[in-house]
Amino acid sequence: MTVALYPLTINSDRLNRSILQLAEIGKLPNSGVSRVAFSTEDLLARQLVQSWMLEAGMTVRIDAAGNIIARYAGKNRSAALATGSHIDTVPVAGRYDGCLGVLAGIEVVRVLNENHIRLDHPIEVIVFTDEERSVLGCKAMAGEVKEDPSYYGRLDGTAIQPCLEKIGGDWSKIATARRDPSEMAAFVELHVEQGGVLEHLDLQIGVVTGVVGQYRFAVKVVGCPNHAGTTPMKMRKDALVAAAQMVLAVNRIALENPGEQVATVGYLSVVPNSTNTVPGEVDFRIDLRDLSQENLEFLVSEIKQEFEAIANATGTDFTLRETLHVMPTLSAPHIMETIAQVSQELGLSYTHLPSRAGHDAQEIGRFTDMGMIFVPSRNGISHSEEEYTSPEQCTQGANVLLQTFLKLDQLYFV
Amino acid sequence: MTVALYPLTINSDRLNRSILQLAEIGKLPNSGVSRVAFSTEDLLARQLVQSWMLEAGMTVRIDAAGNIIARYAGKNRSAALATGSHIDTVPVAGRYDGCLGVLAGIEVVRVLNENHIRLDHPIEVIVFTDEERSVLGCKAMAGEVKEDPSYYGRLDGTAIQPCLEKIGGDWSKIATARRDPSEMAAFVELHVEQGGVLEHLDLQIGVVTGVVGQYRFAVKVVGCPNHAGTTPMKMRKDALVAAAQMVLAVNRIALENPGEQVATVGYLSVVPNSTNTVPGEVDFRIDLRDLSQENLEFLVSEIKQEFEAIANATGTDFTLRETLHVMPTLSAPHIMETIAQVSQELGLSYTHLPSRAGHDAQEIGRFTDMGMIFVPSRNGISHSEEEYTSPEQCTQGANVLLQTFLKLDQLYFV
Repeated sequence: MTVALYPLTINSDRLNRSILQLAEIGKLPNSGVSRVAFSTEDLLARQLVQSWMLEAGMTVRIDAAGNIIARYAGKNRSAALATGSHIDTVPVAGRYDGCLGVLAGIEVVRVLNENHIRLDHPIEVIVFTDEERSVLGCKAMAGEVKEDPSYYGRLDGTAIQPCLEKIGGDWSKIATARRDPSEMAAFVELHVEQGGVLEHLDLQIGVVTGVVGQYRFAVKVVGCPNHAGTTPMKMRKDALVAAAQMVLAVNRIALENPGEQVATVGYLSVVPNSTNTVPGEVDFRIDLRDLSQENLEFLVSEIKQEFEAIANATGTDFTLRETLHVMPTLSAPHIMETIAQVSQELGLSYTHLPSRAGHDAQEIGRFTDMGMIFVPSRNGISHSEEEYTSPEQCTQGANVLLQTFLKLDQLYFV
Repeated sequence: MTVALYPLTINSDRLNRSILQLAEIGKLPNSGVSRVAFSTEDLLARQLVQSWMLEAGMTVRIDAAGNIIARYAGKNRSAALATGSHIDTVPVAGRYDGCLGVLAGIEVVRVLNENHIRLDHPIEVIVFTDEERSVLGCKAMAGEVKEDPSYYGRLDGTAIQPCLEKIGGDWSKIATARRDPSEMAAFVELHVEQGGVLEHLDLQIGVVTGVVGQYRFAVKVVGCPNHAGTTPMKMRKDALVAAAQMVLAVNRIALENPGEQVATVGYLSVVPNSTNTVPGEVDFRIDLRDLSQENLEFLVSEIKQEFEAIANATGTDFTLRETLHVMPTLSAPHIMETIAQVSQELGLSYTHLPSRAGHDAQEIGRFTDMGMIFVPSRNGISHSEEEYTSPEQCTQGANVLLQTFLKLDQLYFV
């Protein structure tokens, strides 16, 4: 399955100029960007990116979900090799989250186009609509959009219909955005890691093994509020003592079981929260993520069992309510293999790792072969003006994407 | 030291009528009382109580701190046997906290007066000013008032000077409220337990061994806020995981060391408190109480040592700041002995226990012999409309107070 590398390479200056130029739209004081989906800034950014797509020799269409789908024609096949990501951001963001994947995709086509190369497969570069909040664009392609449009209403009260209209979409035809598996042979997304694994290991490329599934739970622990002075230690039903044990149980279960699952209690609130009152009630939330649905279910059962034991031992009661469940999506093995092989041939160090944040690829992977390429994030920081990936690292990721496409073109042709 | 009981007994009906009548002033819908110090209700209650003191044959004066000091003359001594408590309440209170001690004191004098009995020592029944918030009355008697009057400003912004004026006190002369040890041979306070120990043990009388000392600390734990998805378990500095261990350490140190100390984390707050963010910072407060200052210091050093170890193990930093320190006050051994002996002779079951809530006796005990008598609180509840001690239990406590005074009168005369 070894195929020699094409003697093609990304134009690093051009790629990084594009990144900086896109970051001018919605620019924040400290090198960050604010470009929330459907905002004026988002519209301007979509225009700029479309002009680059056209310049690179691609045709551009907008589907009913507002996704921008640029296509570089192939020679022999109709099913596309697709890439892309998003250019909308969280309210305070960096320059790289999403944008790198879109701009690297365009750069791959620029390189092919200026070298007069066409692959057997068409290439699609996709800008997905509103990845950061509703994940509407990729969900529409996967046919996973909820029927009730109010589910997609904006925080400021705006309905989704006029939002989609602004970007060329059409809520009433959203079902038409669904893609048939026959239209897309594979989807490969380049993204910044948004975590610290690659930097910590001093590696250049992450071969993503899949995008994790996620459970969220709301937990309420009920004890008995009482005077902190007059209630002897052994007569207490201290909800915070119980909750503290539960927080540590969640942490321990994630740490001590084999695997790379993560579990977090990020939110916790005490009632009545008074220095001299034994806490009567504690609410907290669990966020649990892993690549394996089976493992997630095992961890949830472990957590429930531990919580039962803790409640019994502390004389407290608890309820545990599921508030979110997203199924994991695994990367296609031959795409992972290709990315790893390409990295090696390019002389780039790499490791396999799961993506523990959500991505457009998670939804696209529900109907076609999916893979992801990660490049390092400085200090593991993302969703922050401090987000940073060096020009050299961006170029390395884009080169891996280019060579992966060239190899996949042959692989899928067979 | 055994002295036969006097054939005297409390008029139970009269005592309990007084309790209910006083509870009419500031009455709440569910059998509770609201009578915050210096309020109209407090003024009315002070008038009523003074009229009862006068009727019982006592002279009444108000000191500069607004304390009501009623005196039933003795035969041979100038140093008083004193009792009393307070009639101000927390904003939502029951009928018994404080009031029982004042009204039982008056009832003791009524019994003596109607039987034409005078002790060798004068008896003082004292209503202390604002026990519930500033503890100003008893502190003034102990000479422990802070110089800056703004320290005693009310929550509604009123200064302490006009408050004291309203009740017959005078801030400018507050130093004159200080009592010389030679004026008071002993102070015995009857109070409801406000905890569940006596009820739990099914006992009638508590012989209070002292009023606990107290430390409060504000703790800040600093970790590193991070994405709950993308940050591997082993790369986290989770401030809540560290704080949870500290909460449990505080609990364990109080539970596992010998003694009857109590330690509570009643307040805890997480930053940024977001479900999908590893907590970067946690603030919490420790409330620690015990009879022994030496033991308190030992426990504080244990807590600090454990916190150091937890911070090291979790990669977090912490600061621990003392926000309150009150020295414990021990009961005088011969007063405890007398209360125990009287209880036995009256056929009342009893145990020795510390008071883990603050009381006027704590300050008075700093300059003279102090003792306290506890009667049970139903379900250990206080500072609530649900506070309840039965008429029979109130009478039992008052009878112990009466007989204790009769015995102490002889004991101190020797």
